[in-house]
Amino acid sequence: MKIENGKATGIKIAYIGGGSKGWAWNLMSDLAEESAMSGEVYLYDIDKEPAILNAQIGNSIGDIDGKLANWKYFVSDTLEDALKGANFVVISILPGTFEEMRSDVHTPEKYGIYQSVGDTMGPGGIIRALRTIPMYEVMANGIRENCPNAWVINYTNPMTMCTRALYKVFPEIKAFGCCHEVFSTQKFLAKVLEKKLGIKDIKREDIRCEVMGVNHFTWLKKAYYQDIDIFPIYKEFCEEYAKVGFTEAPDDNWLNRVFQSKQMVKMDLFLRYGYIAAAGDRHLAEACPGKWYLESPECVEKWGFGLTSVDHRYALLEQSLEKRSKYISGEEQFKLKPSGEEGVKQMKAILGLGSFVTNVNMPNRGQITNLPMGAVVETNASFTSNTVAPVTVGDLPPAVFALTIDHVAVQEMVVEAAVTRDLDLAFQAFCKDPQVKRLNLTEARALFDEMIENTKEYLTMYNI
Amino acid sequence: MKIENGKATGIKIAYIGGGSKGWAWNLMSDLAEESAMSGEVYLYDIDKEPAILNAQIGNSIGDIDGKLANWKYFVSDTLEDALKGANFVVISILPGTFEEMRSDVHTPEKYGIYQSVGDTMGPGGIIRALRTIPMYEVMANGIRENCPNAWVINYTNPMTMCTRALYKVFPEIKAFGCCHEVFSTQKFLAKVLEKKLGIKDIKREDIRCEVMGVNHFTWLKKAYYQDIDIFPIYKEFCEEYAKVGFTEAPDDNWLNRVFQSKQMVKMDLFLRYGYIAAAGDRHLAEACPGKWYLESPECVEKWGFGLTSVDHRYALLEQSLEKRSKYISGEEQFKLKPSGEEGVKQMKAILGLGSFVTNVNMPNRGQITNLPMGAVVETNASFTSNTVAPVTVGDLPPAVFALTIDHVAVQEMVVEAAVTRDLDLAFQAFCKDPQVKRLNLTEARALFDEMIENTKEYLTMYNI
Amino acid sequence: MKIENGKATGIKIAYIGGGSKGWAWNLMSDLAEESAMSGEVYLYDIDKEPAILNAQIGNSIGDIDGKLANWKYFVSDTLEDALKGANFVVISILPGTFEEMRSDVHTPEKYGIYQSVGDTMGPGGIIRALRTIPMYEVMANGIRENCPNAWVINYTNPMTMCTRALYKVFPEIKAFGCCHEVFSTQKFLAKVLEKKLGIKDIKREDIRCEVMGVNHFTWLKKAYYQDIDIFPIYKEFCEEYAKVGFTEAPDDNWLNRVFQSKQMVKMDLFLRYGYIAAAGDRHLAEACPGKWYLESPECVEKWGFGLTSVDHRYALLEQSLEKRSKYISGEEQFKLKPSGEEGVKQMKAILGLGSFVTNVNMPNRGQITNLPMGAVVETNASFTSNTVAPVTVGDLPPAVFALTIDHVAVQEMVVEAAVTRDLDLAFQAFCKDPQVKRLNLTEARALFDEMIENTKEYLTMYNI
Amino acid sequence: MKIENGKATGIKIAYIGGGSKGWAWNLMSDLAEESAMSGEVYLYDIDKEPAILNAQIGNSIGDIDGKLANWKYFVSDTLEDALKGANFVVISILPGTFEEMRSDVHTPEKYGIYQSVGDTMGPGGIIRALRTIPMYEVMANGIRENCPNAWVINYTNPMTMCTRALYKVFPEIKAFGCCHEVFSTQKFLAKVLEKKLGIKDIKREDIRCEVMGVNHFTWLKKAYYQDIDIFPIYKEFCEEYAKVGFTEAPDDNWLNRVFQSKQMVKMDLFLRYGYIAAAGDRHLAEACPGKWYLESPECVEKWGFGLTSVDHRYALLEQSLEKRSKYISGEEQFKLKPSGEEGVKQMKAILGLGSFVTNVNMPNRGQITNLPMGAVVETNASFTSNTVAPVTVGDLPPAVFALTIDHVAVQEMVVEAAVTRDLDLAFQAFCKDPQVKRLNLTEARALFDEMIENTKEYLTMYNI
Repeated sequence: MKIENGKATGIKIAYIGGGSKGWAWNLMSDLAEESAMSGEVYLYDIDKEPAILNAQIGNSIGDIDGKLANWKYFVSDTLEDALKGANFVVISILPGTFEEMRSDVHTPEKYGIYQSVGDTMGPGGIIRALRTIPMYEVMANGIRENCPNAWVINYTNPMTMCTRALYKVFPEIKAFGCCHEVFSTQKFLAKVLEKKLGIKDIKREDIRCEVMGVNHFTWLKKAYYQDIDIFPIYKEFCEEYAKVGFTEAPDDNWLNRVFQSKQMVKMDLFLRYGYIAAAGDRHLAEACPGKWYLESPECVEKWGFGLTSVDHRYALLEQSLEKRSKYISGEEQFKLKPSGEEGVKQMKAILGLGSFVTNVNMPNRGQITNLPMGAVVETNASFTSNTVAPVTVGDLPPAVFALTIDHVAVQEMVVEAAVTRDLDLAFQAFCKDPQVKRLNLTEARALFDEMIENTKEYLTMYNI
Repeated sequence: MKIENGKATGIKIAYIGGGSKGWAWNLMSDLAEESAMSGEVYLYDIDKEPAILNAQIGNSIGDIDGKLANWKYFVSDTLEDALKGANFVVISILPGTFEEMRSDVHTPEKYGIYQSVGDTMGPGGIIRALRTIPMYEVMANGIRENCPNAWVINYTNPMTMCTRALYKVFPEIKAFGCCHEVFSTQKFLAKVLEKKLGIKDIKREDIRCEVMGVNHFTWLKKAYYQDIDIFPIYKEFCEEYAKVGFTEAPDDNWLNRVFQSKQMVKMDLFLRYGYIAAAGDRHLAEACPGKWYLESPECVEKWGFGLTSVDHRYALLEQSLEKRSKYISGEEQFKLKPSGEEGVKQMKAILGLGSFVTNVNMPNRGQITNLPMGAVVETNASFTSNTVAPVTVGDLPPAVFALTIDHVAVQEMVVEAAVTRDLDLAFQAFCKDPQVKRLNLTEARALFDEMIENTKEYLTMYNI
Repeated sequence: MKIENGKATGIKIAYIGGGSKGWAWNLMSDLAEESAMSGEVYLYDIDKEPAILNAQIGNSIGDIDGKLANWKYFVSDTLEDALKGANFVVISILPGTFEEMRSDVHTPEKYGIYQSVGDTMGPGGIIRALRTIPMYEVMANGIRENCPNAWVINYTNPMTMCTRALYKVFPEIKAFGCCHEVFSTQKFLAKVLEKKLGIKDIKREDIRCEVMGVNHFTWLKKAYYQDIDIFPIYKEFCEEYAKVGFTEAPDDNWLNRVFQSKQMVKMDLFLRYGYIAAAGDRHLAEACPGKWYLESPECVEKWGFGLTSVDHRYALLEQSLEKRSKYISGEEQFKLKPSGEEGVKQMKAILGLGSFVTNVNMPNRGQITNLPMGAVVETNASFTSNTVAPVTVGDLPPAVFALTIDHVAVQEMVVEAAVTRDLDLAFQAFCKDPQVKRLNLTEARALFDEMIENTKEYLTMYNI
Repeated sequence: MKIENGKATGIKIAYIGGGSKGWAWNLMSDLAEESAMSGEVYLYDIDKEPAILNAQIGNSIGDIDGKLANWKYFVSDTLEDALKGANFVVISILPGTFEEMRSDVHTPEKYGIYQSVGDTMGPGGIIRALRTIPMYEVMANGIRENCPNAWVINYTNPMTMCTRALYKVFPEIKAFGCCHEVFSTQKFLAKVLEKKLGIKDIKREDIRCEVMGVNHFTWLKKAYYQDIDIFPIYKEFCEEYAKVGFTEAPDDNWLNRVFQSKQMVKMDLFLRYGYIAAAGDRHLAEACPGKWYLESPECVEKWGFGLTSVDHRYALLEQSLEKRSKYISGEEQFKLKPSGEEGVKQMKAILGLGSFVTNVNMPNRGQITNLPMGAVVETNASFTSNTVAPVTVGDLPPAVFALTIDHVAVQEMVVEAAVTRDLDLAFQAFCKDPQVKRLNLTEARALFDEMIENTKEYLTMYNI
C-alpha cells in the first residue's frame, strides 16, 4: 500500500462474512465511489458460494456508470488467506443460521418476553453472544498472526460484546465497532428542525452531538445544529408528538416497514430523562426494563414500533437473493449509491487522507468517566492517520447511568463467560438482564436451558 | 469529657429518637454494663412523652443488680439542647408513623409487589427515604452547629440513604451507620460449623469476614474461623439444606417469629453466586429482582421467610408499651443484658480505649474499588482513637457488582432527589428499582403518585 | 448574534488585556480575514490608553486591502461593560509590569537558577501565578455574572494555572487555554520530513498528532503525515542532529532570534524517552530538572537555545510601540496576515460553522488517565457547535508521567495556595519545583521571600 | 498444620536468607516466646554455612530459660526444599555483598550525592533494586510452584520494589512487606507525650496512627493516644526542639549510635507540611530533594543525623560474627527478648489466633486514593484469619503527594525496568530520582554507568 498525490493504492481489505448481502454491497458501492483509494478486497465466508457471487458482483462494478474499476474482489479459501497482510479487516457475519436466531427471538415469547430485535441485549442477545464470541476469538487470533497492525471494523451484533471479545483476546488490536443508529437519530432530529423551525435539507452530519452510552442504547448529551441548541426544540416537539407518535412516510419496500417506528419510545425517554435516546425504538425498547415498552404485542403496537420476526427476516433474505440473481444474470445492474455507512470514510481518515469525528464503539479509556475502564462504550471518536481516539463525554447523567450500567455489567459478564466457557457465569448474567428479570428463577432457568439446547450445534465448545 | 486511668468520664451522648423502645433500651443496657465509660445521655424526640419515660427507665438502672449508676438520663426540649457539645450522637428515629409505613409496605401489594420489610429498597424504601432525608438535613445542620466533632451513629433505615444524606449536607461529619445483619449471618455460620464440624460455642465475632456491599445486601468475600475456610463447608451445607431450609428453634416471643427464616434465600444466593450473602433473608429478597423471591405470598412462603405486615408491627409495639408500663410502674425491673449491638464498644474504641475491626456503612473512599466514590457502602472498618477507617476489599465480584450497582445507582439518585426536592428525579429512581421494574410505566406512575399522596403530610417540603 | 446562510453576525467578543500588542493584533488580522463572522470587539484593559489605540487600529482595518470592515472595535471602561452579553471572551494580559517579570526571571539567577522564559514553571512561573490568579478570580466572577454562557479563550501564562483558576472559581465556565507551541513542533516535523523524505510544503495541520501532557511540557504519543509514521524518521533525524543541532534560517527580526533554538533539547528528550517533546526548547528546558539544560548560561548555549532577558523584552516592546505609532499615524498600514493562531477558527467551530480537532488546555475529565481529574492538561479536543470535548490519549507513558506529575502536583498546589491566599502552601509548592529543588532550604526560603518582596505591590491580597 | 485449643502446631516456615544475623535471630527469639504456635523453620541461604550455624543456634533455644523447644530448625539445600508446602515464607536477604553496597552508597559521593542509607531510594536504592529484583523473580516463581497459598513476609530493602516485584511476577501471591520505622516514630511520640504531658510508659502500640505513604517515606495523617490528639502537642514540641534537636540517650552499643538522630529532619518536615513524617531521619532525608538534608556531610551533621558508611556496616557485622561464635561455642547464651518486630504476631493473626491492625507495605487496592493502583504503598492493614486487608486513608495531602509521587513514579519504572531487563528505562528512572536530579545529564550518565560496572557481577541477566 502506498500513498501518492493524495491517493492510496494497493490497499488490502479482508472481508469476513464475505457472502453478506447488505453490508458487503454497501461497502462495494461506497468503495467504488471513493476515488482516493484503490486495491483488493478478499472475501472470506464459511459458506463460500455467496462470497463467490459477491466477488462476481464486485468485479462487475468497473463497468457500471463509467466508473473506474478501482477495486478487485477475490474469494479466500481460508481466514488466513484473507487476513494475511490486510490493511483493514471488515467483519459482518451471521453467527449461526436464522434457525438459531429463531430460538433467540421467539423462544422467550413462551415466557412472555417479547424482543423487537433479539440480537443485542435480552435473552436473544446473550445467547447469540455465547455462540458468536468463540468465532471472534478465532478472528482475533487470526488477526494477531496475520495482520496485527490492521484496523478492524466490526458490524456484527451483539456489537458491544463482539468488539469487547476482540480486545479481550488480543488487547493490542486496533478495532472499533460501527453502527448507524445514531445516524438515524440525527436524521430524525433534522426532520424535527424542519418541522419546528422550517430549516430544510439539513445534512445529518451537521447535527452535532455528544454521544454517550452503549451500542443500541446510546444517548446524546448535547445536540446542535450550527449554534442552535436542539434540546429545547426537541422538548416542544416531544410534548406535541410523544403520545401520538411521529409517522414517517412508509418505506418503499414494504418489508422494511417493520423497521419503522413512530419514535414514541424515543420521545418518551426524552421527556422522562431529559437526554435524547439515540437509537431506533426497537433497540431502545429492548434496553429498558421489560414491562416498559415490550410488555406484550399490544403494548408494542401502542408504542408504535414493531417486533421483527425471523419469518420476516426470511422474507427479506428472499428479496436479497432475488436481487443477487438478477445482478449475476445481468438482468439488473448493481446500483451505486451512498450507503449512509461511514466505513470507507473511516478507512480514508485512518490512511491520513482526511480527518473527522464520528461515533464508534471502543473500550473505555476515559471517554465515559463513570463506566468501567475497558468496557466497550459508544462515544464520538476522532479519526485521523492511524488513529481512532475516543472523545471524552464525562459522566453519564445519573438516570442514564442507572439504566446503562445494568447492561455494561451483564455484557462484561457474558464476554467473560464466553471466553472462559463458563455457562454458570453466563446464567448469572442472563438472570440479571432487564428483560429476563421479569421471570422468576425457575422460569429463567428453563428458558436458558431451552435456548442453549436449541442452539447447541453452535455451542460445542462449551461443556453443555 | 476526660480520660484517666483508662476510664472516660463526663461523656455526653445525644440520642435523637429518644423515645425509642428497642434501640434506646439496648443502649441503656450496654452502657450500664460498660465500666470504662460514664456520663450523660440527652434524649430528644419530637414526641416528648416517650423520651421522658425512657429517661425515667434509664435513671432507674443505677438501682438494678447493684450496678453503679454511671449514666444520667435527661430529656432535651430541643435538638440543639441535645446536640450542644455532644461527644456522640445516636440516631434511631421512626420517620413518620406506622400509617406512613403502612403505605410504604402495603400499597405496592395492590400492584403485585410484595415487600418483606419495605424500609430499605423497593418502593417502600424509596418513599421512606423521601420523607426521612429532609429530617436528616436538619440533624446534619444541627450537628454542624452544635457538635461538629461529635461522632454520629445512625441506626435508622433506609440506612444507606440516611447516612449518605448526612455527608451530603455536612461533608466533614464523622458519621457511620450500624446494622446487625452481618452479626446474624456470623451466628448462622457458627451454627453451620457446629453442624458440619462439631465445633461448639463459637463466638460470632470469631467468624472473621471480609464484608462488601451495601446495607441489607451485604456479602462476604471470605469467611474464616481461625484457619478454617468456611466457604467449602458452607457449600456442602447449602447443598444439603438449600432446598429444604434450615429451621431454627422458634423465638420465645411468638411475635418475633415473623423475623425468622429458613435461610433458603441466603443459601440459594450462595449456590448461584459463590459468595455468602450476609443479611436476613427478608432483606436479601428485597434487594433481588422482584420475581425471584417475592413474586407472591406463596412464593415467599416457599422460600421460607415471612412478610412483615404493619399490623404485626403494631402488635409488637403493643408488647413494648406494656413492658414500658411495667418498667415505669415498677411491676417489672428493666433487665440488663448484652444487646448484641456494638455501639458502646465502638464509642469506647473511638475514645481510644480499645481498637477493633467491625462492619459499618460509610462513604466509599476506596474500600470498594468498583463502586462510585462517595456512595455509602458496607465494609469492615478499623475503629480506634477518633478514627473509623474503612478496610479495603477490592472489587465486588462481577455478579455481585451487577446486582449491587442497581441499588447504588438508585440510592444516589434518591438522595439527590431528596436534597434537591426533585420528585421527577425521585420517580426516575423509583422506576429503576428492581422491585418496581416489574411494573409497566403506567402502573409505576400510579403507584408512585398514590404512595406520595398517602404520605404527603410528611412531604410538605416537596412541591407536590 | 444570529446565523444565516452560514454566516454569523452580531457576535460580541470581549477582549481582556485589550491593549495587548501581539495577541490583539493577531486576532484583528484573523477576524478581518474570516468572512463568515462579523460583530463587535470590546477591548478592556486596566491601562486604557493602549486599548484606545488598538481600537483605532482595529477600526482602520476596514479600509485595508479592500477588505470589508466586518468588525467594529470599542473600548470598555469596565470589565462588566466588556463582558456583558459577550459570546466570546479572550484573555491575554500582562500580570504586573516587566519589573515584576524582571524579578520572576532574574532574581533566581542569584541562586544559580537560570530560566529561559520564567512565566510557566520554575520560581518565575510560580510567583507570577500568585499575582495572576487573583486577577483571574475577578474575571471568572465577572463572566459568571455577565456572560455565563460565553466561551473563554485564555492566552496568558502561566497557561495551566490561569485556566485552572477559572474553573476553580466558576466550575461551569466554558474555558480553554490555547498555545502555539505544538504548532511550532508540527512545523519542525514538516521540515524533518522534507529533509529525510523530500516531501515539500507539508502544512503543519497535516502533521497529525496525539497530544499529551501539560502546557509547555507537551508530548506527542504518535505523529503521522498521511500514513507515514513520523517516529522512526524522526529517530534517524535525531541521531544525526541531536549533538550538533538543527539550525534554522535566522528570523528576519533579529530581536526574535532569541526565541530560536537548535532543537537540541527536543531531540535529546526524544532519544532518551522515545516520545516527541512538543514545545519550544526554552520551555522544555524549564520543565526538566534544573541541572539538565539550564545548569548555567554556558550549558544553555551548549544546548543551542537562549535565555530571554527582560531587557530583551523591553527592546521588543519598543519595536511594537514604534510600529503602533506608525499604524496610528498612518505612516504604516496594519498588515493582514494569518497569525498562525487558531482562535478565530475555534470560534467559528463553536458557532457550528465547521468542526475540527486541535490541541487545547482543559481540566482533565478522562483525556489523560493517569493524571488527576480536574487538573488542567493539554490534549487534542474536538471543536464543534458549542462544544470543546477533549480527546482521550490514555496513560502518559511511565517516564513522561514521572516528569509531568511533578508539575501537575506543584501547579495544583499553587492554584490552591493562590485562591486560599496561603503563602505557606505556596512555599511548599515552590520548594518542590524541579528548578528550585537545586537549592537547599535556606536558599529556597530566601529566594521565595525576596521574590515575594519584589512583587508585593501585586500581592496585597495575601497576608505578607 | 492444625489448630486445636487455640494452638497451632506443625507450622512450616521457610526463611530465605537463613544465614541472616539480625532478622533471623529476632524471629527465633519471638517464635520461642510465642506459646500458641510451634513447628519447623527451614533456613535457606545461597551461602549455606551461616544458615547451618543459625539452625544450630535455633535448635539450642529449647534449653534456654526453661523454654519449651517449640520450633525445630533445618537447613535447606535448595529453595524448593525450603518452600515446599510452607505456611509462611520470610525473606531477608543481602542482595550481593557489602562490596556492591559500597558502590551503592559511596560511588555517588564522588558526584556530591551523599546517602545516609543508600538501600531504598536514590542511586543506591535503584542500583540495588536492579540486582535484587531478578532474585525476587526466582522466589516468586518458587512460591507459585511450591507453596502458592503461603503468606510471604518481606524484610529486604528496597522494600517497596522487592514487594512490588513479587506481585508483578505472581499476581496472586499473598505477600506484604514489614518495616519498623513507624514503630520508632511511635516510640518517639510516646516520649514527646511524656515530655509535654508527663504521661509515662506509653506503649508504642497505643499511639494510634493513620499511616500513609511509601516505605521509608511514611507519614501519619493522624496520631492519637487514647482521646488525645498528638498533633497540637507535637507542634509545640517541634517549635521548641526543631532547631536544636532532641537528643536521645546514646545507644549502649556505640556502633549503633550512627543510626541515632536528633529527629531534626522529622520535626522540620512536620513544621513545614503539617503531617508527621514517620521514619528515621536517615531515611526521610534520602526521600527529599538532595539539597535539603543531604547537601554535604556538614549539612548532614547540622541536621543531627549520620551517614552510614559501609565500613561501619563491616564493623557491625564483625560484632555479630563474634556474638555468633560465642553462641555456637557456648561461651554466651542466645538471649530471648522481644525483638519489637511483629512478624510472629502477624503470623498468629493470619492463623486466626488474634486480630490486629498494623502498618504494612502492599499493592494499592484503594487504600491511598491518589496513588496509582497496584503500586506498593505503606498503610495500616487489618490482620486476621488468612487476611491482610489494607485500611483506607484517602488521598495523600497535596504536598505529601507531591513529594511521594516522585518516588512512586520512579519505583514503578525501576521494577518494570528490572523485570524487562531494560537498562534504558532504568536510566530514565535513575535521572528522575530526587537525589540524582542534582546532577546534569553527563554526570548522571557517568554515575549510572560506573555503578552498573561496579556491580556487574550481579547484573549478568541484563544486557550490559
